[in-house]
Amino acid sequence: MCIMESGYIAGFDIGGTKSSVILATRTGELIDRVSARTEIELGPMATLARLIRDTRSIVAARGLSVSDIDGVGVCCGGPLDSASGVILGPANLPGWNPVPVVEIVERGLGRPATLLNDADATALAEFLFGAGRGKQNIVSFTWGTGVGSGIIIGGRLYSGTRGLAGEIGHTTYVPGGRPCGCGKRGCIEAYASGSSIVRIATEGVADGIQTALSRLDEIDGLAVCEAARAGDEFAIEVLKGAARAMGRAVSIAAHAFDPELITLGTMAVHAGDLLLLELLRTVEEEVWPEIRAGLEIVATPLGDRTQDLAAVAAGMARLGGLG
Amino acid sequence: MCIMESGYIAGFDIGGTKSSVILATRTGELIDRVSARTEIELGPMATLARLIRDTRSIVAARGLSVSDIDGVGVCCGGPLDSASGVILGPANLPGWNPVPVVEIVERGLGRPATLLNDADATALAEFLFGAGRGKQNIVSFTWGTGVGSGIIIGGRLYSGTRGLAGEIGHTTYVPGGRPCGCGKRGCIEAYASGSSIVRIATEGVADGIQTALSRLDEIDGLAVCEAARAGDEFAIEVLKGAARAMGRAVSIAAHAFDPELITLGTMAVHAGDLLLLELLRTVEEEVWPEIRAGLEIVATPLGDRTQDLAAVAAGMARLGGLG
Repeated sequence: MCIMESGYIAGFDIGGTKSSVILATRTGELIDRVSARTEIELGPMATLARLIRDTRSIVAARGLSVSDIDGVGVCCGGPLDSASGVILGPANLPGWNPVPVVEIVERGLGRPATLLNDADATALAEFLFGAGRGKQNIVSFTWGTGVGSGIIIGGRLYSGTRGLAGEIGHTTYVPGGRPCGCGKRGCIEAYASGSSIVRIATEGVADGIQTALSRLDEIDGLAVCEAARAGDEFAIEVLKGAARAMGRAVSIAAHAFDPELITLGTMAVHAGDLLLLELLRTVEEEVWPEIRAGLEIVATPLGDRTQDLAAVAAGMARLGGLG
Repeated sequence: MCIMESGYIAGFDIGGTKSSVILATRTGELIDRVSARTEIELGPMATLARLIRDTRSIVAARGLSVSDIDGVGVCCGGPLDSASGVILGPANLPGWNPVPVVEIVERGLGRPATLLNDADATALAEFLFGAGRGKQNIVSFTWGTGVGSGIIIGGRLYSGTRGLAGEIGHTTYVPGGRPCGCGKRGCIEAYASGSSIVRIATEGVADGIQTALSRLDEIDGLAVCEAARAGDEFAIEVLKGAARAMGRAVSIAAHAFDPELITLGTMAVHAGDLLLLELLRTVEEEVWPEIRAGLEIVATPLGDRTQDLAAVAAGMARLGGLG
């Protein structure tokens, strides 16, 4: 791998609520970011045209020109086709189907663009800028609203035959168990994700379980964490249950890929104090000692910069033989 | 990949009971095999010297010389270090620790040798000679005494950081469940493997369950299959339970690797009529439809030639950029 240390990368992080342009160096130093609401009702071109305009403004404000940008990374939820650069109707971007985003961005900025899904882009960010620097085999879990994972094998992104590798969050945890957003039942994600935690806590309150959460009009993830930190036993149990389910995901990744490193996103960053002990207990129980011995498991050191750096990393995916 | 279609490959298949030399063409045509007892009590050199002598005899008998052999594959159970070519004390080869088998074979025959564990060698055989020809991403399950798997990614063997990738058989199926040979509890292998089937059936008989198997002095896998084919309900249930556990292994491989092909070894070959329907039912329940749609799941077409061709494939691992 040979990455020049000069030049800049632009990242487009496209979400259902807001979309951002990030400008960074090729070493992952964040220079600027402009965010605005994703105007779903106006269609994809409105948002993309705005991101392209914002890129030009950011660059100009720094006395740079668009030609100083080596690559543009576009990052959003799947489904999408990374090879052809087309977004295929992610759940949070209704109407974005199909959107040939790479073609649009390349035409708009005249720079090479790459589309990756959030999980793959995050894995690449970990490899380039995070705990994965210098490592070859990495599984990087996004652990927020959902449970996804991106995989680096031999220093290259591995996305699978249809771009669906790493969907470990949708392996069965409890046969016939809780309904999952994917339409199946009992998936790890239906127990481990942030939205599952909220759902399980809300159901518990509705069932009349004794908990401080019953005083709230609406329960969110932060409320569950705060209650747990204040010693609420139900909240603690809900989080432990999620941690055990996520421990299973980590255990599966360990046995399938025998990686050097497994990183954990959002929830491990913001609620690691409540989750990681129980998660690692599950890992010690379930993972072969020989595999566990050489395996590092950490909350991502990228912290709150993860999403920005994921978009930037996507912009580097086709530079220097990473893709 | 460029593989010349001339030349021969020798395979050493080293097992705890017997060890064989196989001579084959580079296209996987089996030419000859000589097998003899693995004389554990005489130490590794006795068996290796015999395999080297037998190779010379086989080759001479065909009017060939050892220099017509392009590569020698050595194949046995792990643990072993493929990179350095050293066997590190497999359970079925007591005293073989460490054995620098690649060095010994290369010195003995003057031809390049490669050591692979059974699961990796089998995956490579599937890729070169079996259902995996022309495919890029394959998971190949050995499903016999144990449950192992070898992985081909992007047309190359992926063994993991410590050679332990694909140990999906040791992911947890039932937390705190049946003891597994690996020392943990509740692994898939403790429910799905041939030896687990025998153990579960034997326990059932000891518990006084009504079954034709209770008439036997000793139960083996064949007896369970025969009883099931004769309609014995207990035997059928035991096999269905194993098939469901193996379905979970397949489901995990599907979500982790998003492969084009998953192949199943020994038990699927010999008892597919009793196992595959239930296994595929589990797969339909547990695997994402998007992943399942493009995924082929088959009993290996290599059938009883699998083990021989695995040893031969190991001999080709370092030829033509496969390793």
